[in-house]
This record gives sequence, C-alpha cells and structure tokens, in this order.
Amino acid sequence: MPKMKAIGFTQELPLTNDQSFFEFETDLPTPNKRDLIVKIKAISVNPVDAKTFADQKTALKQPKILGFDAVGTVYQTGSDVTKFNIGDEVYYAGSYIRPGSYAEYQAVDERIVAYAPKKLAAKDAASIPLTFLTAYESLIEKMHLSFSDPKLLDKTLLIINGAGGVGSAAIQLARLTQIRVAATASRPESIEWAKEMGADVVINHHENLEDQLMDEGALGVDYVLELHSLQQYFDQITDLINPLGTVVSIIGVDQSIDLIDWKRKAINFCWEWMFARSYYQTADMARQGEILQEVADLLDEGKLKPTTTTVMKGLTAKNIRAAHQLLQDQSLVGKLVIEF
Amino acid sequence: MPKMKAIGFTQELPLTNDQSFFEFETDLPTPNKRDLIVKIKAISVNPVDAKTFADQKTALKQPKILGFDAVGTVYQTGSDVTKFNIGDEVYYAGSYIRPGSYAEYQAVDERIVAYAPKKLAAKDAASIPLTFLTAYESLIEKMHLSFSDPKLLDKTLLIINGAGGVGSAAIQLARLTQIRVAATASRPESIEWAKEMGADVVINHHENLEDQLMDEGALGVDYVLELHSLQQYFDQITDLINPLGTVVSIIGVDQSIDLIDWKRKAINFCWEWMFARSYYQTADMARQGEILQEVADLLDEGKLKPTTTTVMKGLTAKNIRAAHQLLQDQSLVGKLVIEF
Repeated sequence: MPKMKAIGFTQELPLTNDQSFFEFETDLPTPNKRDLIVKIKAISVNPVDAKTFADQKTALKQPKILGFDAVGTVYQTGSDVTKFNIGDEVYYAGSYIRPGSYAEYQAVDERIVAYAPKKLAAKDAASIPLTFLTAYESLIEKMHLSFSDPKLLDKTLLIINGAGGVGSAAIQLARLTQIRVAATASRPESIEWAKEMGADVVINHHENLEDQLMDEGALGVDYVLELHSLQQYFDQITDLINPLGTVVSIIGVDQSIDLIDWKRKAINFCWEWMFARSYYQTADMARQGEILQEVADLLDEGKLKPTTTTVMKGLTAKNIRAAHQLLQDQSLVGKLVIEF
Repeated sequence: MPKMKAIGFTQELPLTNDQSFFEFETDLPTPNKRDLIVKIKAISVNPVDAKTFADQKTALKQPKILGFDAVGTVYQTGSDVTKFNIGDEVYYAGSYIRPGSYAEYQAVDERIVAYAPKKLAAKDAASIPLTFLTAYESLIEKMHLSFSDPKLLDKTLLIINGAGGVGSAAIQLARLTQIRVAATASRPESIEWAKEMGADVVINHHENLEDQLMDEGALGVDYVLELHSLQQYFDQITDLINPLGTVVSIIGVDQSIDLIDWKRKAINFCWEWMFARSYYQTADMARQGEILQEVADLLDEGKLKPTTTTVMKGLTAKNIRAAHQLLQDQSLVGKLVIEF
C-alpha cells in the first residue's frame, strides 16, 4: 500500500504542545466510485478548522486529518468518474465528514470539484473554495440576489464581519450585483481590507450599526449576512432591517431565538452551511462543482480576486500549529494559505 | 356629511351579547390622495378578524370597524388616484390599521386594489383577496416557486392545515406549479375539501406526519407552509424536511424557538404577514395590487376557483356575530362570505 504524509490530531491540546497537531504516515486514500484522488499543492485554513479541533475534547483512537480547501492535480479517478481526468488541475472545499486536506493526497467526490482557475497560482486559488461557496450560496441561492437585477440598485446588503474570509468573498460577489454593500470591520487594517474588497461603506461593529448606517444616508437594510454572532446582533438586526428583508447566518447560536420579533416585518431567515449538500448527499450536490466553476471563470476574467494575505511554505505540523494559532487569535484579515 | 351603516365593536364580549358587535351610523370616509372610496357588495371573514376582536380586552372609546376582504364599486377617488375610475368593480384585502369592510363604504389605497375577477359573482370574489395574497406571497415570493419550473416535479410541498382559507388558496396556487402537494386535514369534510382543491395527498395532522408521508411514498418534504402552529409542529418539521428546505409560517409563536436545530440542514425560515407591505408602506406596496390582478386573471381563466362555502345575506350585527362564532369554533372549511 502506498503511503503519504499527513498532519493529524487526536484531541484538543494547547498549540504549544507538539502533540496538538503532528505529522504521521498513513495509507494513500483509495477512491470510491465517484471520487478523485488529488495530489495537493496548496490548502487554506478556515475558522471551521479551529472549531472542529476545539470541539474534540476526548482523544480519538486514530489521528484525524482536518482541512477543507485544497488545490491540486488529479492523481487517480474512481470507476464512475466522468467529469475529470488524471492530470487535471482542480480545486474544492471538500466534505465535513471525510479525511481533510492537511495531507499529500485526498479523496473527494467529483461532484463538489471544479477545474482550478487557469490564471491563478495554487496559493491564490486555495483561498477560494469554502469562503466563495458560502458567500455564493448565501447571496445568490438564499437571498436570491442576481448579477443582472437593476432593482438591487435601491437595495442595501449589510455584511457583519466583512473582513474575514467569507466576508471578503461576499463583498466581492455582492459587488457583481448592483446592490449597495455595507460591511463591518473595526481595526484599521480590516477596515482598509473591506474597502479594498469593494464595500461601499464600512462601519464599526463595536458601535450601534443603525446609527452609523443613518449617518451614511442608507434608508435601511434589505439583506443582512451575519458572520459573527446572531445572538449578539439579533436586536440590532430586528431594528434596522427593512420589512420583507432577508437575514442569512452561518454562525450557530446556543440560546433560543425570539423569532416572533421578526414576524411583523415578515422577515426571512436562512441558515447557511456550506457542507449541508455533501453531508446529506443531496440530489443537487453537483451544484457545488458548478458554483466553483462559475467562480473560477469570474476569477480568470478578473471580476473576482483571491483573498490570500498570508502564505506559509510546506506541509508541516509546525505550520499547521502556527496557522491554528492565528485562527484562534481571530486577527486574520483575508485568508491564510499553506503551499506544499 | 353623508352617513353610512357600519358594524362595530368596542371590546371583546361573548358573541351572545348583542353589544359584542353592533350596528351604528358613522360618517362616510373621505379619501386620502391615493384612496378609493368603495361601495361594498360583499366581504369575507378571516381568522385575523377573530384574533383582533379577542385581543381587545379593554373598551375602546369609539367603535372599531373590523373586516379585511371586500368586493365593491368605486364610489369616489382621491386626488392622486391613477389606476381606477368611479364605477370600477374592485376587490382587495385592505389594511391592518385602517377602518375595515364591515361597513357600507370603505377607504382603501389604490395600490393594494385590483379589478375584481370579471366572471365571478361578488360573493365568490369576496373569498379571494386575503387568503390568495397570503398564499401567493408565501409560495411565489418567499419559497420562490415558479409556475414554469420543471425542477419542481421532484419536489414536495407540505401544507399544514390545508382546508382553511389560506390552505385552500395555497393548494390551488401550488397546483399551478409542478410541485407535489401534500396537505393536512382531519375531519371527513375537510379531507374531502383539500382533495377538491387539488392536494395530491391528504394526511392527518393529529398523527405523525413523517410516517404518513413515508407511507405515501414521498421521499421528503422540500417546502412546508405552516398554517396552524409553528411550536406544535417544530420538531416534526425538523425531522421531515429535506436539507436546504424552506418553511413559511403565518402563525405567531409565544415561545422562543430553538432555531439552531435547523442549522445543519441549512433550512430557510420565512415569516409571512400579508399586511406587512401596507402596514410599513413599503416601496413595493403596489405588488399587492399586481398580485391580486394576476389572481383575478387566473380566476377568469378558470385556473383558480373561489373558496366560498358559506354565504350570509346582509350587513347586520347578527350576521357578523354568527360569522365570528363560526371563526371561534374553527370548524369552517373554505370561506364564509357576507353579501350585502
């Protein structure tokens, strides 16, 4: 059985402990019928990586390989693969329940894979999949925004936490519609970044949002993308959102929600979880491959740009621990990529 | 000042008390700039009438005129009215915060009015506005169902409480799409009615919904229209709905909701309140006039049918009290109309 290098963990430990994430050798994955085996060139890390690690309070018997975003080359194909060939350059965000991309090789269902953007280096393409899938599903599928709807000229989207990975992707995608984009950030570098991504207005999420929006001349907010804490912003959203508005959140809550407060305005609320399609193997799971392909084309056309801000070199436990430290600090602007 | 007859109430009283709803004389309304004054021919009653009456625990100083649905003739127009002329036959569901349709004449903003269906008697057209607006906004605007989407062939909509006014409208509208419609009912006459409206499957809401849907061969439910009690059905909906599904509810809750239970499946939840647009005077308030016109055309084409099942004759306090008794009993199938 051919072997590969991977970085694993068995339980949450301080990142200063070199057993928190460690290098180990394991078998190369073997493909299921619709799987590609991809030789990975670059990955990026996401807050969900840190959350999954933090949630592992008891020791696993076998090391678990984390990691979602990846760019690489198709190395082997399952018997029923139809979309890709050995040697193709691909990118994907992977599955929540399969071994991840902190490894030299990974198995991934072809339906959630797309050709990597042709004009982007692997380190740039690796910043894209999870965040842009989340942003696309939120804005295009859940809010039903369209790239060609002139009615959006009169509408405003508020992105709470605009300078993180998903926020950066969402600002850019929203800019391809005609909607006005307000994003929140608080540090000088994150404010600067949100503007660079294309936000029309940047406001501070530590101060009253509605007051700041009024100061900016916004009449109200029709869409809210909540990327920080639904609980923390629930009352503010209740006040500032326009009737018939839509709220999408990707952040879990640990309290019940007084949903009745949103009835009079006939508000729509959508949970977004990028892994839902592959987790439940939905009939439309291949939409994720299609969305990633559309995003790749927009990147190649220069209409979207990668969000990589930090690049580490080499698949090492030390790099993974350092990357997780930055995730825990919650100070990243844009995305952190590890190039193998 | 010209006078008219109206039926009013000042506070909730037993319907056996002839001061619960009583006849009184009052001034004819005078139009605001965009108002029509309509001479009413027929009205229908809705559960919201009974709820508004029940909520009035203290005595009002002036009698309040309830009533939403109305069909009638334009008697006078405000200075800025552009869509209608005196003598036009119109229908509408009115506003939550203006005097209602239990009266000979009523003022209504032209933006939420449409020409009445040409081929329907007033007693039939009066059954339409509130319920069809609610159903249309729920299915077409909130669930984004389309009359021409072949993908809906593989989808299922569950309507909880399918034989009431909104349920009857929703089954019919859903039938104009290609979606499979499951509706709940429990009494023999309501089961029969839901089938007559066009439900593919009728199940009993007093028994486990998912088990019954499985027996009927449904793979799962993609859309739920909750018309009875979100609290009561929350856990069942959580289990039976497909990932990425959409729930629309028109019924308030008096407890917090464990919304996190819907995160993994990435569920969309929408409150529908037909009065939101006129209550908040939204920029797109005229959509309600457009929707009612589309519904009128579908009625004239025979693609929809009125839901009137009970007709009373005459605008009398006695009829209103009898109508409210039937609303309180919650035993109505289809709609109750009062023809003046």
